[in-house]
Amino acid sequence: MSPKITTELLKQLRQVMKNPRYVQEPVQAYIVPSGDAHQSEYIAPCDCRRAFISGFDGSAGTAIVTEQHAAMWTDGRYFLQAAHQMDSNWTLMKMGLKDTPTQEDWLVSVLPEGSKVGVDPFIIPADQWKRMSKALRSAGHDLVPVKENLIDTIWTDCPQRPCKPLITLDLSYTGVSWRDKIVALRSKMAERKVMWFVVTALDEVAWLFNLRGSDVEYNPVFFAYAIIGMNTIRLFIDGDRMMDPAVREHLQLDSTLEPEFKIQVMPYGSILSELQAVGASLSPKEKVWLSDKASYALTEAVPKAYRYLTPYTPICIAKAVKNAAETEGMRRAHIKDAVALCELFNWLEKEVPKGTVTEILAADKAEEFRSQQKDFVELSFATISSTGPNGAIIHYKPVPETNRTLSVNEIYLLDSGAQYKDGTTDVTRTMHFGTPSAYEKECFTYVLKGHIAVSAAIFPNGTKGHLLDSFARSALWDCGLDYLHGTGHGVGSFLNVHEGPCGISYKTFADEPLEAGMIVSDEPGYYEDGSFGIRIENVVLVIPAETKYNFKNRGSLTFEPLTLVPIQTKMIDVNLLTEKECNWVNEYHQKCREVVGAELERQGRHEALRWLLRETEPLARVQ
Amino acid sequence: MSPKITTELLKQLRQVMKNPRYVQEPVQAYIVPSGDAHQSEYIAPCDCRRAFISGFDGSAGTAIVTEQHAAMWTDGRYFLQAAHQMDSNWTLMKMGLKDTPTQEDWLVSVLPEGSKVGVDPFIIPADQWKRMSKALRSAGHDLVPVKENLIDTIWTDCPQRPCKPLITLDLSYTGVSWRDKIVALRSKMAERKVMWFVVTALDEVAWLFNLRGSDVEYNPVFFAYAIIGMNTIRLFIDGDRMMDPAVREHLQLDSTLEPEFKIQVMPYGSILSELQAVGASLSPKEKVWLSDKASYALTEAVPKAYRYLTPYTPICIAKAVKNAAETEGMRRAHIKDAVALCELFNWLEKEVPKGTVTEILAADKAEEFRSQQKDFVELSFATISSTGPNGAIIHYKPVPETNRTLSVNEIYLLDSGAQYKDGTTDVTRTMHFGTPSAYEKECFTYVLKGHIAVSAAIFPNGTKGHLLDSFARSALWDCGLDYLHGTGHGVGSFLNVHEGPCGISYKTFADEPLEAGMIVSDEPGYYEDGSFGIRIENVVLVIPAETKYNFKNRGSLTFEPLTLVPIQTKMIDVNLLTEKECNWVNEYHQKCREVVGAELERQGRHEALRWLLRETEPLARVQ
Repeated sequence: MSPKITTELLKQLRQVMKNPRYVQEPVQAYIVPSGDAHQSEYIAPCDCRRAFISGFDGSAGTAIVTEQHAAMWTDGRYFLQAAHQMDSNWTLMKMGLKDTPTQEDWLVSVLPEGSKVGVDPFIIPADQWKRMSKALRSAGHDLVPVKENLIDTIWTDCPQRPCKPLITLDLSYTGVSWRDKIVALRSKMAERKVMWFVVTALDEVAWLFNLRGSDVEYNPVFFAYAIIGMNTIRLFIDGDRMMDPAVREHLQLDSTLEPEFKIQVMPYGSILSELQAVGASLSPKEKVWLSDKASYALTEAVPKAYRYLTPYTPICIAKAVKNAAETEGMRRAHIKDAVALCELFNWLEKEVPKGTVTEILAADKAEEFRSQQKDFVELSFATISSTGPNGAIIHYKPVPETNRTLSVNEIYLLDSGAQYKDGTTDVTRTMHFGTPSAYEKECFTYVLKGHIAVSAAIFPNGTKGHLLDSFARSALWDCGLDYLHGTGHGVGSFLNVHEGPCGISYKTFADEPLEAGMIVSDEPGYYEDGSFGIRIENVVLVIPAETKYNFKNRGSLTFEPLTLVPIQTKMIDVNLLTEKECNWVNEYHQKCREVVGAELERQGRHEALRWLLRETEPLARVQ
Repeated sequence: MSPKITTELLKQLRQVMKNPRYVQEPVQAYIVPSGDAHQSEYIAPCDCRRAFISGFDGSAGTAIVTEQHAAMWTDGRYFLQAAHQMDSNWTLMKMGLKDTPTQEDWLVSVLPEGSKVGVDPFIIPADQWKRMSKALRSAGHDLVPVKENLIDTIWTDCPQRPCKPLITLDLSYTGVSWRDKIVALRSKMAERKVMWFVVTALDEVAWLFNLRGSDVEYNPVFFAYAIIGMNTIRLFIDGDRMMDPAVREHLQLDSTLEPEFKIQVMPYGSILSELQAVGASLSPKEKVWLSDKASYALTEAVPKAYRYLTPYTPICIAKAVKNAAETEGMRRAHIKDAVALCELFNWLEKEVPKGTVTEILAADKAEEFRSQQKDFVELSFATISSTGPNGAIIHYKPVPETNRTLSVNEIYLLDSGAQYKDGTTDVTRTMHFGTPSAYEKECFTYVLKGHIAVSAAIFPNGTKGHLLDSFARSALWDCGLDYLHGTGHGVGSFLNVHEGPCGISYKTFADEPLEAGMIVSDEPGYYEDGSFGIRIENVVLVIPAETKYNFKNRGSLTFEPLTLVPIQTKMIDVNLLTEKECNWVNEYHQKCREVVGAELERQGRHEALRWLLRETEPLARVQ
């Protein structure tokens, strides 16, 4: 990996920072955040502006360029990568270390008095703008919105914004029509006495209209906004996608409809002026509902007195609770995904001893097996295929420079998933193709105990997921081991593999309470730097539980695993399991046998079926 | 309980709300919060202004009086009590119910346009002022500080502010001299580049100067403020307390000292003008450190640009980590407290069957036994002595109207504690003096399992206490039971029985990480409305733990119980305990026997000793 040479680019950027064609007044600093205009976690190539200007292409990082300096803030996952990818023009700001200044403090320390700091108001979320603007103002500087993105002005070979065809999802996938979703949304709006709702997150637009796209890799979304009024629907979207007869039919664009369900299609770029027009037309007490993470540009378009901001939108909350059709789809997707992984692990077991399987080949093979399954669309994230020490790098993705060959002497960790038209999968299994050491088995078994503790947990309706996080750690903690990531995240239904508003993480507090129908991952791990990584991940569905006293009718909840892939029994030290845990493993494997076994049989995949049957033999616990 | 007649009082209050002698302009509403000028949890009689004006004397509630209305906001614990204590002039606003308006929303709905809402700026914390002021301003009203407290102007027989003698604590109790505490504080101030620190919480003043008082019942504190500069110490305190030679000697008021340790004693009431003078004298970049919960009056005294506000002050954090002298003192206090409770329970066992022991008598007897112990000062909170259905009222305090007689047919719950000169105690035991039902034993045993799960938990250094809260619930949850309070709170060392910044509660997130030397309570419970209450509470010390892998040298922590009072084995269903839990109980009881037994022996309390020995017989688990 050699660093990107950025001398010329930075020179150009510093010129446009003073060029009256782009800025009303020269800006002495320019901020280049990671995100896109929708605060997406995964972004399109045309939005990778921070990577373009600096060379550093990790998933998190903020660049700030002043007349004299160029600095990059990123977190511990990326210190090494950023240092490798950036040239000497850049200073790496290691977030989380005690002596690293915040962006605000650094700006104040390097800027001449009365400076202007520019940023694209569409890329910076309103809450971040507020914080930074306040800090700069109190030091005598100004944060100013620069309408034209200055990186785009110098990015001559910037890829085009993707504008790929849409997929329409009928009721058998979504369970609820877009019309009924609009009705439900309007009733939430009426409850809060809000007249308008602005849909800014890409997965929320996709969910609301029962459409999917492929504008962003791994996420079946498309670039669009919507403004929902009590009597109007405006969809902001580009390209000829609205010419597709299937889409026109799906959205009933050519039908005679009650006016309140008539969708007005408008250019993607006209959202700001349309929202400003809405904002200007408001009567007193009419409010506009926005996510508090919406961009500064859109938030500012609504006069302050008319804004109604919440951390989670009603769409985000409704989307999280999967209906029967979605749940069934998720089940089907996970069975197909399990078939693919049985094929893969059976293949790996034969091939790994030959010494010819690399991490990249294993990842490719996983994709190949998945792509043979019905309604496969794409992967749901970049496959983490890691062996030995690479497994200890939590966000590892194999590249030729790091690509390691799988062997019978090392633990192999595979964290992978796919988008099927009926659901999204995300599963991690940790395998040994030779003989694991006692220590490796010990650590694996603690992780398994944590996984079971969450999966089998019973808790009252209304419990927030973060309260379950410690259950996953208790067995590890007892021996002085831990892992430095959350235990689970929300999972979309043929949508983003990471979604709010629920999860299982000690890092969050403002998650929404778990309720039946929500889907999260359960993925504790243990990582030994330089040696190995262990993680056991299932996607699990929140379901009602039966308890003796049922929390005085408050209701009881627990989880049902949707993922049905064997957990390698060879890695388990059975003596460390309680009887209850042992039974959990055996019942889980029995279900894998029955459900996935039947599908393997149906697909005529007899060798993989034999592998499944062998891998799901019951554990025998020595009393 | 008959309600207080407030017609005349409200008339008087409405008059002073317009009286130019007290208000610059008439105020259309006046807010009467619960607290005192130090945001204390427990307050002195002279600060019970809300109780005076309304009749409602629960621990939490805010009154607002307008020209037409009088309304009281309180939470679920007090709906019944408030309704009983207030006359028909008052509207009860039940907080936590969906249709109850917030104070701000209610004010906006009842006030005429452009109203002024008054409040005593010393009583309202700065963060609350900010929130309310913003909401009122956006609706066209103004929140205004009213210097003279309007309740005080009509409270003709208001008790005097207490001004009781001080207790000086020498090094054998405190472990660190006040001088060294000042040195440590100044070093924290230097770290944060802060020139001044304002001590506003009463327990922080007491801790800093190694002084105690008795101005507030149950809390050994005294009314005072302090302003600590890098070279100056100002102590604001009233009365002739500074004439006491022991206090003068302790504070070295008459010694020749380095100027930076010379304490300037000033009148309590001069804090505002002194702080204003400090605020006016600041050079750029000189900051003043205040708690963000300090009063609006004091916060406003420092110009905004010079304020440095944090949720936890350096004193709060230092105070939470007990040193060796404090820990030893706490141990001694808990042994004495256990002696008193062995005496009490032995006495109850004999007396309850006679049918002559009421809740109040039992509470009095507990105090009597405690007061026989060395260095006893007072109780640390109002004793919760409750039998049968009263036990299900979590914050119950027996009064003649509710006073129930203990019997051999009902569960008895005693939550009590004391202030000794060497430490503060807080212990809950749940007993049955006859034969408990299978259901009562079942519930008790789940609570015990939760208690043990926390007490025996092992966790990495730096873990926040709220992450342990679910451990206390897991056994209850498995059967569909829960309790609606947090699991633990910080405990002071001969100071407030509730103190920050750590605790074990699902309700908080911003608690400080646990570290060795911190002291918290571990008190899960279960409450069956109308039938019984169960709670098992020990005060526990955070200590280093030995683990196999020690979190890669991050360090392991666990708890050591300081409370050493038998847990009634008659209430335990041994078959529901694991072997590990059974061993925990037996080891705990063994320690009670050894440590408390020796002290009972030393004090010649042979009957109580026999009771202790009988109650600590090992459990035998049927395999």
